[in-house]
Amino acid sequence: MTLGKLYAIGVGPGDPQLLTIKAANILQRIKYVFTAASDSNGKSLALQIASQHLAPDAKIHPLYFPMTRNKERLEKAWEENCTKIKHVLQLPEDAAFITLGDPSTYSTFTYLMRKLNKSVDLHCEIVPGITSYQASAALVRLPLAEGEESFTIVSGAKGTKELEHALTYSDNIVIIKAYKHYKEIVTFLKEKGLAEHSVAVRRCGLPGEEISFQIDEWDGEKKSYFTLLIVKKRPLHKKLFYK
Amino acid sequence: MTLGKLYAIGVGPGDPQLLTIKAANILQRIKYVFTAASDSNGKSLALQIASQHLAPDAKIHPLYFPMTRNKERLEKAWEENCTKIKHVLQLPEDAAFITLGDPSTYSTFTYLMRKLNKSVDLHCEIVPGITSYQASAALVRLPLAEGEESFTIVSGAKGTKELEHALTYSDNIVIIKAYKHYKEIVTFLKEKGLAEHSVAVRRCGLPGEEISFQIDEWDGEKKSYFTLLIVKKRPLHKKLFYK
Repeated sequence: MTLGKLYAIGVGPGDPQLLTIKAANILQRIKYVFTAASDSNGKSLALQIASQHLAPDAKIHPLYFPMTRNKERLEKAWEENCTKIKHVLQLPEDAAFITLGDPSTYSTFTYLMRKLNKSVDLHCEIVPGITSYQASAALVRLPLAEGEESFTIVSGAKGTKELEHALTYSDNIVIIKAYKHYKEIVTFLKEKGLAEHSVAVRRCGLPGEEISFQIDEWDGEKKSYFTLLIVKKRPLHKKLFYK
Repeated sequence: MTLGKLYAIGVGPGDPQLLTIKAANILQRIKYVFTAASDSNGKSLALQIASQHLAPDAKIHPLYFPMTRNKERLEKAWEENCTKIKHVLQLPEDAAFITLGDPSTYSTFTYLMRKLNKSVDLHCEIVPGITSYQASAALVRLPLAEGEESFTIVSGAKGTKELEHALTYSDNIVIIKAYKHYKEIVTFLKEKGLAEHSVAVRRCGLPGEEISFQIDEWDGEKKSYFTLLIVKKRPLHKKLFYK
């Protein structure tokens, strides 16, 4: 049996104009669109960003991935979600799974692709998207890396555990998901003398977007899941870069 | 005096459809387009990629950045290039500097912005682009990072010098510019038992694009500047990801 094709589409960090032309062209002709949603409200930021690019007759299927550690409940949700996608592919019809940022960078799509592959001979194509850290670097006009420098992306969800190593060996660091342990991370960067080499960006490309070169001014307030820090070994030329 | 605005436009790794909608919209109305070119032939890959998106009356200005270590010659070239851009901004007209991949990631634009800022009150906007490593990850269907993993981008131009450290602390590594020291890098990865966890991609999105999960089969032949390696600490599920 020939299955439809599954497209994983990165919709970028927020601005609907930051989708690639390829992503927009595919979405314009796809009738079945899947998107991840937390089960509490069914809202999908990826869907809001992509909405102006969707076909008028596109059917939207929010997939509920419950925020739980209950393995049985989680497994059941994944199975149901995979079944929904398989139904469409078996029609056979093409489908799109839209994801915030880039499908290869911290996306649910990787797990979904693996799960689906276990029971069907999945034919899929991944369309890359702009990540939040690229859009943030562009916004504050600070390069992520120059010349032969290295740069590392770490998750702040683990606190400062891996930061020490990354800061030792990498010339540039981006700390994504810096919201939960923000204060701890800022204290750590101050101790290392790197607070002055850092910039914080919150909700890049989304309503409420904010930038701070005084990273400690956000301590303990106005937290957002979409908070990241760009930390550079080199001193920043703030006046040069951001105005 | 009001100056024109300078847009730094990331045109992505090769496929003209991987420009963002924002990048294409800006290019459609910009009359002055600057692009980096090596002085030997004046060719610009960024220009080839962007060409279908340019205004019909756009004036193309290749900027020659000679591949030399002669400081005097280099400095002279930079000065001339900055002067050309300033002339347009002072008309005043908006201008675009197009760059392969993303303007914040290993791009000449960072240097250019710094130089320009020294003599004019530069008003610029950076439009992010898809990088070669994102497009490569999408092509081979391997995630760059999952969950709370970290990932590091290192330059292979330095050989294996920084790889040891990066492999110690990072869950995923991308080695860009892996062409010159390719054999040395592959030998190093074999010693670490990571050759089986690696994939090589050459000229992603360009004519002559190639993928290899047998990274040692490229030893000593068919080198390309646009060669990168994705190395993962976790074993690859090759059949799962690439077919």
